[in-house]
Amino acid sequence: MTQTSLSLNGRIWIEAADEKILGHGRVELLERVKASGSVRQAAMQMEMSYKRAWDLIKHMNEKFGAPLVTMHRGGKGGGYAELTQKGLDTIETYNNLRAKFDEFLNANSINLLS
Amino acid sequence: MTQTSLSLNGRIWIEAADEKILGHGRVELLERVKASGSVRQAAMQMEMSYKRAWDLIKHMNEKFGAPLVTMHRGGKGGGYAELTQKGLDTIETYNNLRAKFDEFLNANSINLLS
Repeated sequence: MTQTSLSLNGRIWIEAADEKILGHGRVELLERVKASGSVRQAAMQMEMSYKRAWDLIKHMNEKFGAPLVTMHRGGKGGGYAELTQKGLDTIETYNNLRAKFDEFLNANSINLLS
Repeated sequence: MTQTSLSLNGRIWIEAADEKILGHGRVELLERVKASGSVRQAAMQMEMSYKRAWDLIKHMNEKFGAPLVTMHRGGKGGGYAELTQKGLDTIETYNNLRAKFDEFLNANSINLLS
């Protein structure tokens, strides 16, 4: 290959029973819930409907076998959303995989150019 | 992670200047042109319009800096399509990358289950 501008790119996601349960977008949603303490805020930031965000979170909570996000209702502020330890671990697991995948893409982009 | 049915999946593709120029579907198209000697046959097999198939091939021919597929017109059979050496090399390059990527997915799916 003499082309000098080729590079490798891609996406990864986690599946359970051949169904996608976690990828780049859902991890971003979890991270934004973690940062804001609010599913509504996270959804707005991602230009996603509140219903869509909740459907994704419910789907993850179900498919991972334990909640990744829990709601604390009531109180002065009207309640907040919080990531469970499993939610935090899941973000870390995905980000570690994504870092390894980025290494894979970089290593093989170099091969493409040679 | 105690969930036992999680696995990692993903897609890879080759880009030039941040634009996708080759992925799973286009490699399948090239392989079907190679096998059938016909862009029309390959398009039909993939339930793709002839125009769409040709647009993809023209795009690849342009972006890879040299043709991957050439047409031989006329003759008894009305002409045929043929992969160039660069086309054959490109299929091999992609399939080697895909094999490495499958190893990556398998290796990290095992980590997910532990």
